[in-house]
Amino acid sequence: MTPPDIIRSAYAELIVSDLDRSRWFWVEVLGFAVTSEQPDALYLRGFDELTHHNLILRTGPQPAVGRIAFRVRASADLAAAEAFYGARGLRAARIPAGSTPGVGEAVRVEDPLGFTVEFFADAAHPERLQQRYDLRRGAEVARLDHFNIVVPDVRAAHEYYQSLGFGLSETIEDDQTLYAAWMYRKQTVHDVAFTGGDGPRLHHLGFFAHESHQVLRICDILGSLRGEHHIERGPGRHGVSNAFYVYLRDPDGHRLEIYTSDYYTGDPDHPVLRWSVHDPRRRDFWGNAVIPSWYTEATTVLDLDGKPRPLLPEKQTAEVRVGADGFPGPAR
Amino acid sequence: MTPPDIIRSAYAELIVSDLDRSRWFWVEVLGFAVTSEQPDALYLRGFDELTHHNLILRTGPQPAVGRIAFRVRASADLAAAEAFYGARGLRAARIPAGSTPGVGEAVRVEDPLGFTVEFFADAAHPERLQQRYDLRRGAEVARLDHFNIVVPDVRAAHEYYQSLGFGLSETIEDDQTLYAAWMYRKQTVHDVAFTGGDGPRLHHLGFFAHESHQVLRICDILGSLRGEHHIERGPGRHGVSNAFYVYLRDPDGHRLEIYTSDYYTGDPDHPVLRWSVHDPRRRDFWGNAVIPSWYTEATTVLDLDGKPRPLLPEKQTAEVRVGADGFPGPAR
Amino acid sequence: MTPPDIIRSAYAELIVSDLDRSRWFWVEVLGFAVTSEQPDALYLRGFDELTHHNLILRTGPQPAVGRIAFRVRASADLAAAEAFYGARGLRAARIPAGSTPGVGEAVRVEDPLGFTVEFFADAAHPERLQQRYDLRRGAEVARLDHFNIVVPDVRAAHEYYQSLGFGLSETIEDDQTLYAAWMYRKQTVHDVAFTGGDGPRLHHLGFFAHESHQVLRICDILGSLRGEHHIERGPGRHGVSNAFYVYLRDPDGHRLEIYTSDYYTGDPDHPVLRWSVHDPRRRDFWGNAVIPSWYTEATTVLDLDGKPRPLLPEKQTAEVRVGADGFPGPAR
Amino acid sequence: MTPPDIIRSAYAELIVSDLDRSRWFWVEVLGFAVTSEQPDALYLRGFDELTHHNLILRTGPQPAVGRIAFRVRASADLAAAEAFYGARGLRAARIPAGSTPGVGEAVRVEDPLGFTVEFFADAAHPERLQQRYDLRRGAEVARLDHFNIVVPDVRAAHEYYQSLGFGLSETIEDDQTLYAAWMYRKQTVHDVAFTGGDGPRLHHLGFFAHESHQVLRICDILGSLRGEHHIERGPGRHGVSNAFYVYLRDPDGHRLEIYTSDYYTGDPDHPVLRWSVHDPRRRDFWGNAVIPSWYTEATTVLDLDGKPRPLLPEKQTAEVRVGADGFPGPAR
Repeated sequence: MTPPDIIRSAYAELIVSDLDRSRWFWVEVLGFAVTSEQPDALYLRGFDELTHHNLILRTGPQPAVGRIAFRVRASADLAAAEAFYGARGLRAARIPAGSTPGVGEAVRVEDPLGFTVEFFADAAHPERLQQRYDLRRGAEVARLDHFNIVVPDVRAAHEYYQSLGFGLSETIEDDQTLYAAWMYRKQTVHDVAFTGGDGPRLHHLGFFAHESHQVLRICDILGSLRGEHHIERGPGRHGVSNAFYVYLRDPDGHRLEIYTSDYYTGDPDHPVLRWSVHDPRRRDFWGNAVIPSWYTEATTVLDLDGKPRPLLPEKQTAEVRVGADGFPGPAR
Repeated sequence: MTPPDIIRSAYAELIVSDLDRSRWFWVEVLGFAVTSEQPDALYLRGFDELTHHNLILRTGPQPAVGRIAFRVRASADLAAAEAFYGARGLRAARIPAGSTPGVGEAVRVEDPLGFTVEFFADAAHPERLQQRYDLRRGAEVARLDHFNIVVPDVRAAHEYYQSLGFGLSETIEDDQTLYAAWMYRKQTVHDVAFTGGDGPRLHHLGFFAHESHQVLRICDILGSLRGEHHIERGPGRHGVSNAFYVYLRDPDGHRLEIYTSDYYTGDPDHPVLRWSVHDPRRRDFWGNAVIPSWYTEATTVLDLDGKPRPLLPEKQTAEVRVGADGFPGPAR
Repeated sequence: MTPPDIIRSAYAELIVSDLDRSRWFWVEVLGFAVTSEQPDALYLRGFDELTHHNLILRTGPQPAVGRIAFRVRASADLAAAEAFYGARGLRAARIPAGSTPGVGEAVRVEDPLGFTVEFFADAAHPERLQQRYDLRRGAEVARLDHFNIVVPDVRAAHEYYQSLGFGLSETIEDDQTLYAAWMYRKQTVHDVAFTGGDGPRLHHLGFFAHESHQVLRICDILGSLRGEHHIERGPGRHGVSNAFYVYLRDPDGHRLEIYTSDYYTGDPDHPVLRWSVHDPRRRDFWGNAVIPSWYTEATTVLDLDGKPRPLLPEKQTAEVRVGADGFPGPAR
Repeated sequence: MTPPDIIRSAYAELIVSDLDRSRWFWVEVLGFAVTSEQPDALYLRGFDELTHHNLILRTGPQPAVGRIAFRVRASADLAAAEAFYGARGLRAARIPAGSTPGVGEAVRVEDPLGFTVEFFADAAHPERLQQRYDLRRGAEVARLDHFNIVVPDVRAAHEYYQSLGFGLSETIEDDQTLYAAWMYRKQTVHDVAFTGGDGPRLHHLGFFAHESHQVLRICDILGSLRGEHHIERGPGRHGVSNAFYVYLRDPDGHRLEIYTSDYYTGDPDHPVLRWSVHDPRRRDFWGNAVIPSWYTEATTVLDLDGKPRPLLPEKQTAEVRVGADGFPGPAR
C-alpha cells in the first residue's frame, strides 16, 4: 500500500480560549504575520512561508490541537491517503476545498497514534513577505519546522512514520528503549519528532528563525513585558539536531519552540545520529537540566469529531528516570 | 584658564525641512524613542539614554545643524565656559533653564572652529527605557556616541579640543599632515572626531548600537522600503576605532552612523593609535573603498543667530589624494 | 531520455599553483576541515558535510576548475548520465571507484555548456564534525551550497538544467533578456546559478555558514592578516536569495562566496521570484554597487583531458550595461 | 582622609593547583592571550586590554584568590592608599616595581572586608592585540570587567566602597535588607559587586566580550569537549546590568562570567536602579532559576601572608530565602 507522498509539515490548528489574548502573544509579541482572520480564527505564518498559513488559532471550549497538517505532492495523494488509512481500519474524511482558507481539498484521518492528521496538495500563495524586513517583529519567525508529539510507544511511532516514508535523523536510546526519535520528509532534521509519555498529545510546534539573536530577542521582549513565565526552557543548544532553541508556552499552555541552525538531510544514505540516553548533552549540549514540566505537560488532541482523545499511558521507561538530567534533580 | 569639565557628547539639534518625513525616518524606520514633541520639533533618544534626548529635529528654512551639545559636570562649568570662550573673544550666550525641554540652564558659544556648541549641566531623567525590549525597533539605537565634524585644519581642531581636556585615541596621518583625529572625554574612542575639508560642517552624528546584527537589520529594513539610497557607505569594520559601522543619510541629507563595538579609553596613559594614511584598512578594515560623497558632503552649521556659517576652504592636503582608497577610483 | 536523478551540488576540483599557499588560505584562514591529503592535493569540507569533501585543491600548471560534481541518487544514475549525454553526442567517461578518495564509481561528461561535470552516487562518510565546535575556525563553513557558472547564453543554460530536472527559484531579467537564473535540486535557492558572460567559466563556489557574524568574522581575520585584497565584494545582503554574503578571491584568483540565510524551496509549486534588471536591490539589497571585477573575472574550465576550454563570447546584452549598478560608475 | 583615585578593576591573581590544566581551560578553550609566563605562573589578558594582564594564574597549595588589583591614577595614590588603610588600622605593604611582571610599584592592603587588594599606577603596554582577529579563539574575551565578592554584610561593603569613591549603579533590596549592590569607578555598571554570604570570598571574575554570539560559542566549544560541567549557570540576560552572561567554573572551581552588553554610567547624576528582591527577573531577566551552587560556592581569599582567610558568617537574610528563585526549588 503506497503512502501519500508527503512533502513537509505544513501547519497546525490550535484551539485557544481567548483569541485576543492569543493574538497578543502570537502576533504582537512573537511577531507572526496574519494572512487572514475570521471572528473565531487567525491564520498566521512566518516570513519565509509562501503558502497561506503555518498556524490556525481557533477559539474553542478547551485548549487542544485540532489537527496537524502535511502538504502532499499532488491531488492523487489524497486518494492514496484514504486508501492507506482505510486499509488500516482508520477513520478518514474528505474535506472540500475552501473549508480551510488558503487550503485546497484535503483528507483528514485519525492516525494509528491517535492524532488527527490532514493531508492537502493545493495551497494559496499570498503576498511574499520574505524581504519585508520592515514588518518583522519579535522572534522574526521564518516558517514552521516540525511537530513534536507525545506517544506512549516511541518505537511504534517510528515504525508508523517509517511506513509513511519518513527518514530517521537522530535518536535517544539505550539497549532496551527508543526514548525519542526525529524523522523528516523535507531536507531538515525533522518534520516530526516523538517524545515518550502518555499520549496522544502534542508536545510542541517548532518554528524556524534564521539566527540565534532572534531567539534571544524574543526572551528579552517577554522579560520586558513581565511575561517571563512564557519562557519554559532555554535558550540553549540542543545536542540532538545541533539547533539553538527556546521553548515558550502560549497563554493556553500550548508549547512552541523557536529553533535555529539545523542541517541538511537530503542525501539518500543520510546517516542516523544515535545519542545515548545517558549523555547529559543530548537534550542540551551545554548540560543544562531539562525543566520538569517540559517532560510532563503537553496539549490534548482532538479526534475527527472535535472530541478530546483519551490518553494511553506511556508504555516504556521514562527518559527522565534513566537520563542524566531532569527530575528528581539536576545532574550537576 | 580652566575649561569647563566636559562629561560627554550629549545631543545635537538638526534643522529639517519636513518633520513628518523626518519622523518617518528617525522614529518609524530607525526606531528612536520620542521623549517629547512640539509642533515644530521632536526630542529623540536611544534606549540606553537616561537623560531627555540625544537629538532634536526642528523644522527650519534649510537643512543645518543648530548646535552640538556637551554635558558638563556642574553648574559652575557654565561660568567656566563663558570665561574660557570670552577670553578668546568668542561670542557666548546664557540660555535659561527650560528653553530646551529636559535641559537646565546652558551656555552656547561660537567656538574657534566655527561651530555653535552648547554646554549644560542639569538634565531631566525621563522613564528608563533600557529594558523596554518590547519598544525597540529598527536599529535599536542605544545612545549618542560622538560628533564628527569637518574642519579645514585638523591639527588646529585637535589642539583646540586638547585645550578643552579631550584625550586623543587615534589618528590618520603622515609625516606632513594630520588628516583625521578621534578625541574623547567619556571612556570610549571618541566624543568628537575631525574630518579634513571645507568647514565648519557637521560630518555625521554617531549613534551606538549593542551588536552588529542591529547594523545589518537597519540596512535590511531600508532595502524592504526601497530606501536603499539612505545607505551611503558600509556596513563595514572601521580600522580606526575597530567599530562595525554603517553610514546613512536622512531625508535632508544629514549623515548618521550606526556604530557598534568600540573600546575602553579611561586609563590616564591611554596610548594613541596612529594609522598611516596609506594603510587601506584605516577607513575600512576590509579594504572596501570609501564612497566619494562621504568625503565631500556634509551639513551646514548655524551660528548663534541661526544664520548659516560661511565655509572656509580646507587648509591641508586632502586625504583622498594621498590615501589608498577613495576617488578617483578604488584601490583594489 | 531520463536524466540522472541529481541530489545536490557536492564538490568541485580547483587547480591551484601552490598548495602551501592554498592550504594557508582555505584551511588556516577560512577554516575548512581537511579530510585527507596527498602530496599534490587537499580534500576539504565544511563542518556539516557528512561525506568526504566539498572541495579538492590540486596543483597544476595554471589556475582552473577541473570539474564540478553532483551527487546522484543511485548507481543506476551513472548509466542514465552516460545515456543522457551520449544521446547528445557529448563525451563521457566512466571513472572507477577509488580514483577520487571518498567517492565511488563516477561518470564525467563534457556538458552542453562546456563544463566538465561529474556524477557519483557512493560516498564515504568520515568522522562527523558537526558538533566539533572546538575545531571550528575562520568562517566556520558548514557545507558547499552551490556552483555559479559563467555562460554566454543564460536562457540556454536554464533550459539545459531544466532538462536535468532542476527547479527555478529566482531570475534577473527584462522583456528581452534572461540575465541570470538560480536553479536547485536540493531544497535551497540553488545548486547552480548562471552569470552572463564569456564562457564557460566558473564564477564562484558558494559555501554555507550558519550566521551572519561568521561572514563578518572572516573579513575581520583577513583584515588582521593584511589580506584585505582577498575580499572582493561585500559583505552585503543579496536581493536574489535574500542571503547575507561576502565574495573572496583565493591566492589563485578563484572566487568563493560565504553565504548565509537562504530559504526552503521544496514545495512542488514553488513560485519563481523574478527581479527586474533595473532594480538596484537585485544584486545587493542595500543598493551597494557591484565591484566591476565581479562581473568580468572568472575561472578557466578544463575539459575531460585536462585542457583549458576556449571561451565563447557572451551572446546576450551584458547586465552591467542595463542594470542600475556596476560600471562605468555606481548608481547612487 | 582622601582615598586613592581608583581608575578601574585591573586584574586578579588566582591560585590554581595544576598550571597545565589551567592553561588548557583559560588559554586553549577560553582563548585568553598569554602576555608572559613563568614556570609557576601565566599572565593573561583579553584582546582589548592594553596593559600587561587581567589575570595571573599561579600554582599554589590550594585554590584561592591571592589578590584583586585596582589601577590608580598616579604614583601619589599609592601613598594615599597607605594612609587611607593605615588610618583604619589595616595592614598595608609596599611592593617594589617589577615584583609583578608588567606592573610598577604597588601597595597591597588587607581591606576592611577581608580581601587582599592591590593598588598600582604604572603598567607596561605590550603589543596591541585589539585587531588581531586572527589570534582570537574561544570566547574572544576583550578585557576584565569586574570583581564580584561575597560579603557577610552587603550594606557595610557598599559603605566602604562608597568611601573609596565608587558610584552605585544597581541594587537588589527590600525594605529591610540590601541583598546585593553593583558599584563602579570606570563608566560601566560595575568594577565591583557584592553577593551576600559567608565571607570574604571571591564570587567571580567578570570578563567582557563584545557580542552575545561569543557567549554562545564558548558554551558550544565546552559541549564539544565534553566540558559541559564547566558551565554553571546560563547563558541568560541579567535583569541587573541588562548584560547577557554565562557563568563558568574553571578546573579549580574558580567562577568566571563572560559578560556582554552593559551600559554607560559616567554622568555625575547617574540614577540608581533598585530591584526588588521579589522580582524574578532581577537575576535572570527571563525568569530562569539561579543554580543553587551559584549562591553557595565561592573562592577562598588569601591574606597578605598568603594564608587563607577565615570565613565570617552571613549577617543578613539570605537572598534565596526571600527571592522568587533559587533553592529549595525553582519558582516557576
